[in-house]
Amino acid sequence: MAKVNIGEQAYVLPMATTILGSLLEDRPNFMALGWLTRVNYKPPLLGVAVNQGHASHRAIVETGEFSVNFPTVDMVEVTDYVGLVSGKRVDKSGLFTLFYGELKGAPMITECPLSMECKLVKTVELPTNSFLIGEIIGAYSEERFLTEGVPDIKKINPFMLTMPDNGYWSVGELVGRAWSDGKAMKKRLKGE
Amino acid sequence: MAKVNIGEQAYVLPMATTILGSLLEDRPNFMALGWLTRVNYKPPLLGVAVNQGHASHRAIVETGEFSVNFPTVDMVEVTDYVGLVSGKRVDKSGLFTLFYGELKGAPMITECPLSMECKLVKTVELPTNSFLIGEIIGAYSEERFLTEGVPDIKKINPFMLTMPDNGYWSVGELVGRAWSDGKAMKKRLKGE
Repeated sequence: MAKVNIGEQAYVLPMATTILGSLLEDRPNFMALGWLTRVNYKPPLLGVAVNQGHASHRAIVETGEFSVNFPTVDMVEVTDYVGLVSGKRVDKSGLFTLFYGELKGAPMITECPLSMECKLVKTVELPTNSFLIGEIIGAYSEERFLTEGVPDIKKINPFMLTMPDNGYWSVGELVGRAWSDGKAMKKRLKGE
Repeated sequence: MAKVNIGEQAYVLPMATTILGSLLEDRPNFMALGWLTRVNYKPPLLGVAVNQGHASHRAIVETGEFSVNFPTVDMVEVTDYVGLVSGKRVDKSGLFTLFYGELKGAPMITECPLSMECKLVKTVELPTNSFLIGEIIGAYSEERFLTEGVPDIKKINPFMLTMPDNGYWSVGELVGRAWSDGKAMKKRLKGE
């Protein structure tokens, strides 16, 4: 049971796998993105960490807009592909059927069961990456991926990333209920 | 196949479920945390989004240190519990067996198969939350949770959160290899 220090190769386990959309000199561009999180509830803010050398970084800073799209397990190959080639050299705009909400700089992917369009509200510069914080202006899905009006992870069937072993993983089973499964313990400990 | 706007109730799908550790007036404190992401590769930076009203927020800003711990599926109840009760009213320091690395303000949880200790390097204030960015000083696991020296998600058996339906989910199967599965497509498209 001895703890071992595994050093700096430590990552969030696991990470959602998404496709970041932007408009690079009027051409829709896409890259694979695993470093993102919601950061504020109201207004709904979402942050994405992007290397400053990436074409997507320049596009987002220039247009002030971006999209985040959640691919399904069926889209592993194309998702990995958009993470392997740079928009500086390759035109990735024809890989997907696109649609738009309110923001012209946030091309979204029709094939993805869940997409969000975001307006950049803050840029946090870090040593090699920027953390780009956007407000979610709209989120889009289809009725067949929803249960009671909200995204159903088993219908959407997204996949996750692990680093540094570079695995993609599907979602397993429902193992609990948040803000609920701890209630019995709360009652129990209060009685002590 | 028509897209529907599901509004602002849009979250990263899914989110890793973690337990944030801090030192609140010399007492170890813990809360459930699903809003986090790596933000920089080198140095290794990790950001956590915490409501400014939470006891953990004050503790982290005061000590400049925190930990992030990854519980297993077996720890759903206690993880949910530390998200239900506030450290302002309840002493949560006895729930776990604790250990420390280099930082005295970053209590880590022995029962969790993966823990990281972080030194706060930047605080980004947002409307209701702060995004607290820390440098990972050390990451700890046990040999039985590693494969070839790195964390093995199937051995660790963590769980994920979905919102707003508030589900906890296990990890499924390996469905691909990152920075690899797109290589054939790259070769194919270059030939066009």
